[in-house]
Amino acid sequence: MHELTRELFVKNDSKIVMLVADGLGGLPLEPGGKTELETAHTPHLDALAKKGVLGASIPVLPGITPGSGPGHLGLFGYDPLKYVIGRGALEATGIGFELGPNDVAVRGNYCALDARGNISDRRAGRIASEESAPLADVLATVKIPGVEVFVRPVKEHRFVVVFRGEGLGGHVHDTDPQKTGVPPLDPVAADAASTKTADVAGEFIRRATQLLARQTKANGLTLRGFAAKPDLPSYEEVYGLRAAAIAVYPMYKGLARLVGMQIVGSAQTLDQQIDVLSENWSKFDFFFLHFKYTDSTGEDGAFQNKVKRIEELDAVVPRVTALNPTVLIVTGDHSTPSLLKSHSWHPVPTLLYSACCRSDDCQSFCEREAVHGGLGQFEAKYLMPLALANAGRLGKYGA
Amino acid sequence: MHELTRELFVKNDSKIVMLVADGLGGLPLEPGGKTELETAHTPHLDALAKKGVLGASIPVLPGITPGSGPGHLGLFGYDPLKYVIGRGALEATGIGFELGPNDVAVRGNYCALDARGNISDRRAGRIASEESAPLADVLATVKIPGVEVFVRPVKEHRFVVVFRGEGLGGHVHDTDPQKTGVPPLDPVAADAASTKTADVAGEFIRRATQLLARQTKANGLTLRGFAAKPDLPSYEEVYGLRAAAIAVYPMYKGLARLVGMQIVGSAQTLDQQIDVLSENWSKFDFFFLHFKYTDSTGEDGAFQNKVKRIEELDAVVPRVTALNPTVLIVTGDHSTPSLLKSHSWHPVPTLLYSACCRSDDCQSFCEREAVHGGLGQFEAKYLMPLALANAGRLGKYGA
Repeated sequence: MHELTRELFVKNDSKIVMLVADGLGGLPLEPGGKTELETAHTPHLDALAKKGVLGASIPVLPGITPGSGPGHLGLFGYDPLKYVIGRGALEATGIGFELGPNDVAVRGNYCALDARGNISDRRAGRIASEESAPLADVLATVKIPGVEVFVRPVKEHRFVVVFRGEGLGGHVHDTDPQKTGVPPLDPVAADAASTKTADVAGEFIRRATQLLARQTKANGLTLRGFAAKPDLPSYEEVYGLRAAAIAVYPMYKGLARLVGMQIVGSAQTLDQQIDVLSENWSKFDFFFLHFKYTDSTGEDGAFQNKVKRIEELDAVVPRVTALNPTVLIVTGDHSTPSLLKSHSWHPVPTLLYSACCRSDDCQSFCEREAVHGGLGQFEAKYLMPLALANAGRLGKYGA
Repeated sequence: MHELTRELFVKNDSKIVMLVADGLGGLPLEPGGKTELETAHTPHLDALAKKGVLGASIPVLPGITPGSGPGHLGLFGYDPLKYVIGRGALEATGIGFELGPNDVAVRGNYCALDARGNISDRRAGRIASEESAPLADVLATVKIPGVEVFVRPVKEHRFVVVFRGEGLGGHVHDTDPQKTGVPPLDPVAADAASTKTADVAGEFIRRATQLLARQTKANGLTLRGFAAKPDLPSYEEVYGLRAAAIAVYPMYKGLARLVGMQIVGSAQTLDQQIDVLSENWSKFDFFFLHFKYTDSTGEDGAFQNKVKRIEELDAVVPRVTALNPTVLIVTGDHSTPSLLKSHSWHPVPTLLYSACCRSDDCQSFCEREAVHGGLGQFEAKYLMPLALANAGRLGKYGA
């Protein structure tokens, strides 16, 4: 796909806005009832649906429920089965740690060790964040010759370590034995290029364990999900787009950064996000705007709150259309039905408006209409080429 | 796909029923008329269609008409372009011969040889089954050192030979020269691993030809479609499912056995099949129930009979729903329009019901509604991941 877009993209003055309502798709609470989106009063999205074209986006493949990583990679046009963001790299991304090309990120867990050095609790008694956060500062004092070490707290028993240095491969086996009563495993390289990483990790564990020795709950640690920075080509390279990301949460800023988007503004509310969009309108070709709360309310099983969040999104649509984007897309990275309180596999209602989008019969923006919209059901990775085409940014393939 | 399901499947107490009406899809006899399914009175399927979600399943690829093998492999979630069941193996499967890992199955044809040993009739004058069946018993007396030989009659001039032994590769060229006036070809190995198979087949042909020498019609034979047992991963391995097959005809039992399903019961009627389903309800996670007569009536061009068979299927639906399956699927392995008297490429109306299936606007179970149902048009191989997802049996892909 990127071979095609790389070859065919052209540059012009068009503006593309991709409004991602995280976890947008839903389910009715009762069979035959209405989904959150169908329940919400969304006059502006419905007006756009009439003028635009709808479709149902399949995040990965039918039946496959994506995490945030693969969900967004799909929307960004990166095949989520080809491009995989390792666990450690995603964890680092999620807390806003900007990975560099010489970094290996690892997810750490504090654990409790007994007198013989065997794990007695794999999660250090689910130690509270307030207790565990200071430990990251302690571990950050570990020095290893020739390598920079960064340690950042996550929630409860979790932390992130990043090793930065030359020649650090990303393939090292987990040290978590996945059971208690045995000691943590030694880090073992899974390929020749990762021998140095395994050595560095082993040294880190030795020094860190000494520093934790006097802790009562968390006197040990395990390391999981070793991962180098994923090697994703940039938006500039594959689409010829100067892309900006306007997100509140670190995870989505991080994912956008991985594909070369520039993080702009420091908005905390949706209205502020639209302010940032306006302020940066002239500087970029593409804007990814991420709205988190349609997902978090779905995860909470809070149907009515999700409805309200969708209405909140609808309310800012006129401010976006007032900017007169060449292409406006409204979609989600996956469904998060309140009924399931989790991400799901259901296709995501997707709306595309441009002056040449070839409208369909759909009268409102919702799941029920989207499945027979003019875009049909399509894998999310095809949304970016559709956006480029509607923006006049893709030339002809073949003569 | 199976890499994904292998990684993501989880086990729970859900029950999945896949009701396969062979050759279900049809065509109207007159342009603008109704198909067999649209003509049939199907109140129970229509009620399920209202609560569930419809789609149109493409057995292999658009325009491609599948045989029973690829048709079912698709439904079972095995890419029918990747997994190929060799002709001999399918023929053996079709007559209920259970292939083992050391078997090579071959389709045999009796032929007529003239005094010089040249083929004068490639099908032995289409010898009647009553005449040809006893010949299989004669050929079964052939002994070859170090190899077991099985010979089974098929219809008319056809039979199946299975060679069982160590080191028998499945790649040997056909001995049928595809014309008369020349002798049968010698079996020639197509790869080094099949040299022994070619030698064994050559020896079998010599001894069999001696035994047939006094026959008038069928005094020779040719061998075609050498094939080892196809190497298909099992349902247990790729989906974590204990799967049962409830089928009347040997072909479908055989296909199910190839993917590791257990054949249960010895039902001869649809009602008996449902009895077997009930009796085995607690022992399996997944049930494949095969109904043959929607295909055979289609093949006969008997439009009204196919309508009746569909109504017969509809009548047992309440007995299935009374078992309260977590996921109920009604589909076919391909279309068999009475108009064409053959399998066809047309997408197959497919119905999926679960408590979280996200219903669509479809009001009845038929081709016309299925094409704009909530499952869209999809390759049959995606039906199993959808079934697993709806059963809560697939975890999240990526974080």
